[in-house]
Amino acid sequence: MDPATIVGVLLAFGAILGAMVMEGGNPAAIMQPPALVLIFVGTLSACTASNTLPGAIGSFKWLIYGMTAKKVDTEGVIEPLVKMAEKARREGLLALESEIESVEDPFMKKALQMAVDGTDPDDLYEILMAEVKSLKAAATKGASFWNDGGGYAPTIGIIGTVLGLVHVLENLSDPGKLGHLIAAAFIATLWGILSANVMFLPFGKRIKLVGMNEAARMEIIVDGVLAIQAGANPRVVATKLRSKIVADVPGGPVAKEAA
Amino acid sequence: MDPATIVGVLLAFGAILGAMVMEGGNPAAIMQPPALVLIFVGTLSACTASNTLPGAIGSFKWLIYGMTAKKVDTEGVIEPLVKMAEKARREGLLALESEIESVEDPFMKKALQMAVDGTDPDDLYEILMAEVKSLKAAATKGASFWNDGGGYAPTIGIIGTVLGLVHVLENLSDPGKLGHLIAAAFIATLWGILSANVMFLPFGKRIKLVGMNEAARMEIIVDGVLAIQAGANPRVVATKLRSKIVADVPGGPVAKEAA
Amino acid sequence: MDPATIVGVLLAFGAILGAMVMEGGNPAAIMQPPALVLIFVGTLSACTASNTLPGAIGSFKWLIYGMTAKKVDTEGVIEPLVKMAEKARREGLLALESEIESVEDPFMKKALQMAVDGTDPDDLYEILMAEVKSLKAAATKGASFWNDGGGYAPTIGIIGTVLGLVHVLENLSDPGKLGHLIAAAFIATLWGILSANVMFLPFGKRIKLVGMNEAARMEIIVDGVLAIQAGANPRVVATKLRSKIVADVPGGPVAKEAA
Amino acid sequence: MDPATIVGVLLAFGAILGAMVMEGGNPAAIMQPPALVLIFVGTLSACTASNTLPGAIGSFKWLIYGMTAKKVDTEGVIEPLVKMAEKARREGLLALESEIESVEDPFMKKALQMAVDGTDPDDLYEILMAEVKSLKAAATKGASFWNDGGGYAPTIGIIGTVLGLVHVLENLSDPGKLGHLIAAAFIATLWGILSANVMFLPFGKRIKLVGMNEAARMEIIVDGVLAIQAGANPRVVATKLRSKIVADVPGGPVAKEAA
Amino acid sequence: MDPATIVGVLLAFGAILGAMVMEGGNPAAIMQPPALVLIFVGTLSACTASNTLPGAIGSFKWLIYGMTAKKVDTEGVIEPLVKMAEKARREGLLALESEIESVEDPFMKKALQMAVDGTDPDDLYEILMAEVKSLKAAATKGASFWNDGGGYAPTIGIIGTVLGLVHVLENLSDPGKLGHLIAAAFIATLWGILSANVMFLPFGKRIKLVGMNEAARMEIIVDGVLAIQAGANPRVVATKLRSKIVADVPGGPVAKEAA
Repeated sequence: MDPATIVGVLLAFGAILGAMVMEGGNPAAIMQPPALVLIFVGTLSACTASNTLPGAIGSFKWLIYGMTAKKVDTEGVIEPLVKMAEKARREGLLALESEIESVEDPFMKKALQMAVDGTDPDDLYEILMAEVKSLKAAATKGASFWNDGGGYAPTIGIIGTVLGLVHVLENLSDPGKLGHLIAAAFIATLWGILSANVMFLPFGKRIKLVGMNEAARMEIIVDGVLAIQAGANPRVVATKLRSKIVADVPGGPVAKEAA
Repeated sequence: MDPATIVGVLLAFGAILGAMVMEGGNPAAIMQPPALVLIFVGTLSACTASNTLPGAIGSFKWLIYGMTAKKVDTEGVIEPLVKMAEKARREGLLALESEIESVEDPFMKKALQMAVDGTDPDDLYEILMAEVKSLKAAATKGASFWNDGGGYAPTIGIIGTVLGLVHVLENLSDPGKLGHLIAAAFIATLWGILSANVMFLPFGKRIKLVGMNEAARMEIIVDGVLAIQAGANPRVVATKLRSKIVADVPGGPVAKEAA
Repeated sequence: MDPATIVGVLLAFGAILGAMVMEGGNPAAIMQPPALVLIFVGTLSACTASNTLPGAIGSFKWLIYGMTAKKVDTEGVIEPLVKMAEKARREGLLALESEIESVEDPFMKKALQMAVDGTDPDDLYEILMAEVKSLKAAATKGASFWNDGGGYAPTIGIIGTVLGLVHVLENLSDPGKLGHLIAAAFIATLWGILSANVMFLPFGKRIKLVGMNEAARMEIIVDGVLAIQAGANPRVVATKLRSKIVADVPGGPVAKEAA
Repeated sequence: MDPATIVGVLLAFGAILGAMVMEGGNPAAIMQPPALVLIFVGTLSACTASNTLPGAIGSFKWLIYGMTAKKVDTEGVIEPLVKMAEKARREGLLALESEIESVEDPFMKKALQMAVDGTDPDDLYEILMAEVKSLKAAATKGASFWNDGGGYAPTIGIIGTVLGLVHVLENLSDPGKLGHLIAAAFIATLWGILSANVMFLPFGKRIKLVGMNEAARMEIIVDGVLAIQAGANPRVVATKLRSKIVADVPGGPVAKEAA
Repeated sequence: MDPATIVGVLLAFGAILGAMVMEGGNPAAIMQPPALVLIFVGTLSACTASNTLPGAIGSFKWLIYGMTAKKVDTEGVIEPLVKMAEKARREGLLALESEIESVEDPFMKKALQMAVDGTDPDDLYEILMAEVKSLKAAATKGASFWNDGGGYAPTIGIIGTVLGLVHVLENLSDPGKLGHLIAAAFIATLWGILSANVMFLPFGKRIKLVGMNEAARMEIIVDGVLAIQAGANPRVVATKLRSKIVADVPGGPVAKEAA
């Protein structure tokens, strides 16, 4: 599991609470139930209103999917594909039948099975790419719920603060409480900005990123399986598939091969 | 009917009023006629000014359409299409004539009728896809009225607050009323942000989403009817159409079939 | 003439002034010459600086064009095209010569004349679509002047307010005038936001929308004339052209035909 | 030279200073060296940090190019192209050799020379369109430096104001100076917004616009020269090229020809 | 190495500190550990939460790559390609074998080697362009981490300021310290805006720009090597490749050649 989101969210909360403590504040001061209800119930309600019910529920599953996504192992996909390309070229496409059993990735398994079953290459390409496209669209939709939240939360926080200030302004008779009441009013803005920047927006970006990474991995599988079906030269297949890897570091495959 | 928008808007208002009550405020304090007139008449007027008259009127019909949209049942579309593909392959395209009567979906009915009537496949594709494209464009236009409102409302709210503060500043002679007047001035900002984030923006996003979901369902019908007309293998048709479903949850059709 | 923009702008101003009166304010208080000069001269100057001189002047013509645009009558375009398709199929393309005189729309007239004159279909398509594309680009440019204004005006308003506050802060010796001076300073912000949201942004959106509607109507003419030239089946022509209408209400042509 | 940018910037400054004078302020009050250094050195440094050194230097050349650009004379390009199309059709492509000398536009000269030299039409199209595309990309890059400045300047202005207010808050002991110090703090915000909206953003928009106008003119030349090379009918060439003009006023070529 | 980013960041910090000193402030006043921890730990944590762990780590490598990128020397790429095109045309493709050794650029070396090895032109194009596309995608991802930071930092700064003000408002009993505490609260906003505009956003823009420049250089290599493999006319190759250069100054290759 790639822990970036969990670690990042915890560290960000740590930095905020740490800064409070360093300045002599008490972190408990921001745990105000009205503000928390307003921000979290209000924002998630607005997100739901912008969506369909299955879409809203699915977005929470996308959140779990996004936070617990495995590290994408593109190389671990290319190697078996190249091996199968070699076997298919030597022994024919049907020889892969026995290999398919041991393939763990469900998408690669399905693609290989369809290729071995003699699916027309055009149909095969259309079906597999449609799944890639559907995944991209689904991840974008799953992410948009949280991105919407990142847009709504700060302004709903301002609603809370304006409500609080209105309450203060209507009750100016007790000046001793003013400071405390104004402070309480700003807690809503605080939680609005905090939830947007440390939770909702990172959630949305992560879900989209994880979905796109998975789609890129699937595209490499599609290219590989189609090349296997076409009986392409395994060395060319390996070079082609590697040229499509989007590296996390500068230089990428060129640098690696030139090294 | 998918209740997400209605439930979401009610819950969001509930969270806002609940937070007010929890802080000891009186929800009635925000029901100020001048602010309500300014925000709702002002914003909808600006939205109308950005549109044509039929477009502005149509946007309210789109709102009703968006809020009352049925749950999209893509599977309920694929199953009958696959059955017809089987029948057409066994008994010929004309055998579908009797089935068409019982088709409820008007778009599927029209597409099947045209296919059975012997419309040229290229014409059929062009006509059906033009309707899909027109729906997407129409939903985008219907949504844009409300998205415009989401942009105008907060700033019109600020207009109201500035007007209120100007009024306050011109009448500083009665300090006892200051708090109340400033509070009243901020109510306009409150309604501007509230209407934008809990109503206008969710309305726009929902209309667009519902329109795109419907367009996706129609695209599956187009693909299915064209495959039926071409006499494609029903099993391949089923796989192709399912590969185009954009799931609400991660995993999608691959996960389902591999399970 | 579609009155949405004129009616919308007047209603929005009415809502703002009405809210002022309801709160006991005097609408005349916001008619401050320095603020009006700053916002309108300043914003339009910045818009001009972002443009060319003919582009800036043309934008005012686009504004008149946008505000006075007729209701788009797509059906009024399809009907005569379908009739001509019938005539051309029965009596040959040259038989349309006599009809062209009575066509009022200059673009349809030109397209039909070129078709009857025997222009090569590829040339005809290229020329007519180039005009559609040019119109879209021209409307986008005409709208961008006003969209720029919608971006500049609020910040130029803030310039005015900051200038006013600086003036106030340099002259704190007369506290009695402070309220009035601060109020005056905020009038610039008021006009900046007001002009952007009730005038400039709606102007830009309306011009773009009217231009796109006109371009969509022209595209239907292009498709119709090319189909006439190709001697297509008039019933198919009618179905094709109607499938391209982007309706203002949900449901569109499908709903209409199925009804 | 199209003076819109120079005139617009001067008028905008005039409106700002005029509004100051009308309110009884002294324009000299905003000429504060620390704020000017912060905004202009700070913003241009941040723009440079976002760019490469040759890109940053080139952006100033793009600024001069954008501000001093000539009025685009598309008609002045179409007329000679149509004349050459006539000559080439009558006397052959080589007859243009003598005309090329007198062509002033370097791009048209180069394109005609290549056509007369017998460059393969596909190569000719690829080379000329690559130059058009490069110009668009280069203008976009040149404009982005100034657009970046339009984004950085207001926030760097806020940095200045926060710095000033911090300075004020650390020195509350002398209340007599407070007004002056706070006023001075806001001058940085003033210059940040002013420079962004009256200088940087208009500069960026103008450079992009001038580049796109020039690219549109070049595309017309490319189409014209390719048509000449192909020996196209001069009347069709004239119609085709005119259909690609993006007019500054509504109606465009259709209106003109129909008039 | 192109020093624009390093020089720009240092100059921008210099302008900010210089403006402080000019106004009589003490630059040390902004070095507040709580604010620095909050902004830098908080922002980078939120960026990490929006990413994967390898992606977050890779973004720092992209930062080093972006800041230390060499000046792009497109001409230095075109010249050897044209020379090889001449040699290949005279002596055949295999004659380039001896030249490849001395090529320093790893991408050009790989491309030439594959061409000489007799790779199918379609495969060669697909593989090389896939690497260009991967580089663009990788640079965009590397830049997005920093762009995210540019979005998170100012709002996390506001979190810090709200936390500080809440702390102040809860402790209004000691008015003598108020100024100092409020000033401290604003330092977080200061660092949030400052880090976004002088560091994170310029970092993101620079990485993207450097990646796109490198990709443009690689595209010219791809075009060149494919032309060499196809045995194209070296003079045409030179003209084609030069037409694709995106110049940093207006005028570009046309101006140069016409001069």
